[in-house]
Amino acid sequence: MAVMEASRTLERAEVEKLVREVLTQRLRGQITPPPARERHVMTPSGAGGPPHPLVVNVSARHMHVTPADLEVLFGPGAKLTKLKDLYQEGEFASEQLVTIVGPRQRIIPSVRILGPVRNYTQAELSYTDGIYLGIDLPLRISGNHENTPGCTIMGPKGAITINQGVIRAERHAHMSEADMAYYAVKDGDYLKLRIDGPCGLIFNRVKVRYHPKVVLEVHIDTDEGNACDLESATHMELMK
Amino acid sequence: MAVMEASRTLERAEVEKLVREVLTQRLRGQITPPPARERHVMTPSGAGGPPHPLVVNVSARHMHVTPADLEVLFGPGAKLTKLKDLYQEGEFASEQLVTIVGPRQRIIPSVRILGPVRNYTQAELSYTDGIYLGIDLPLRISGNHENTPGCTIMGPKGAITINQGVIRAERHAHMSEADMAYYAVKDGDYLKLRIDGPCGLIFNRVKVRYHPKVVLEVHIDTDEGNACDLESATHMELMK
Repeated sequence: MAVMEASRTLERAEVEKLVREVLTQRLRGQITPPPARERHVMTPSGAGGPPHPLVVNVSARHMHVTPADLEVLFGPGAKLTKLKDLYQEGEFASEQLVTIVGPRQRIIPSVRILGPVRNYTQAELSYTDGIYLGIDLPLRISGNHENTPGCTIMGPKGAITINQGVIRAERHAHMSEADMAYYAVKDGDYLKLRIDGPCGLIFNRVKVRYHPKVVLEVHIDTDEGNACDLESATHMELMK
Repeated sequence: MAVMEASRTLERAEVEKLVREVLTQRLRGQITPPPARERHVMTPSGAGGPPHPLVVNVSARHMHVTPADLEVLFGPGAKLTKLKDLYQEGEFASEQLVTIVGPRQRIIPSVRILGPVRNYTQAELSYTDGIYLGIDLPLRISGNHENTPGCTIMGPKGAITINQGVIRAERHAHMSEADMAYYAVKDGDYLKLRIDGPCGLIFNRVKVRYHPKVVLEVHIDTDEGNACDLESATHMELMK
């Protein structure tokens, strides 16, 4: 009996040690989501060429938060701190990670908040994530939360439950006026994105999103990035 | 101290209860992977039409096993038992589930074995799964294991470690002679699969796989099925 007792204790101690290690690693930021992958096609600009090179980025699951929700999750006075800059000026991946809780008693940990803070709280997930969590994700452009589901979000200092704002982001191309002029499109139009390679495909619906201060950047999610294996792409083309 | 002790015991008892519940549910088959999704386009056959309707199925992650590996995983004399028939005659989803262990100290539980048993053991995963597990998946047609990675697989009665056989299945269309004649292709050729809908796209490389006893069926994986949101497809077309 003493041996069995010792054996049980050891197992529990080991389990507790593992949990502690995972928590410690997470606190140190050693366990993080896979990095967003990025592909550039450096097409010459000027002289009839496009004003900006074609950049396609995979958006891994992430969140945007309001200042008030940030304080509930990370404590009074909490601010987003920069982990690294993103491609668009002023946008950044923060060091702050949260856990999303879904209705199937499943969680997704280490979901990164992208800054700066927004005037809405939103979770952008892939359909793979949605099926795992048990959330039927609507396809939306960021910020459009009409008839979208909510979820519970846990931070180190507190949890929030949002009633809406959980979406799959519709594929889109951020464009300045010069980019729209070059591709002869306007805000809200759709373009096609051709990805050649072993998993080649053509995304037929890439929505144009105009902002005066952006440069050309296509965002697809991890399902889309993995479906076409963006990393192994041999050629990319944005076309009407 | 007694209260804290009781409190600790309660927590452990609750944890153990939860684990037991999960195991019981799994044994009862109440926790299963998301079902493979299926879309049909019922095009009339005969009179110049295709010999078989266009059927596109999403293959969720799954395994094939040899009789010998099945016995290690499920005990001496173990046989695959049928959960449900698949679209191709003789193929079936078995009741047997295993756990795949990857190099990042992460596991994927409840991976279903598809029967009948094969003369090789193989795990077919999505890139999303591969990134999660830490396995760099090669793109292969089923059965081609040259220079493919392995993994550890746990069953209720034992574990195996395979040195090769972990792949992402290349998109493919199972075709009979009549199907190949209709689409004017031969074994190993590539076709395009057009999916219209809110997440519309064209898969440019769908490999033709001939077998005399199959009927037309396209297989894509969960990344691909989620990228195009196969469930919401309004039209599908297989074309050269």
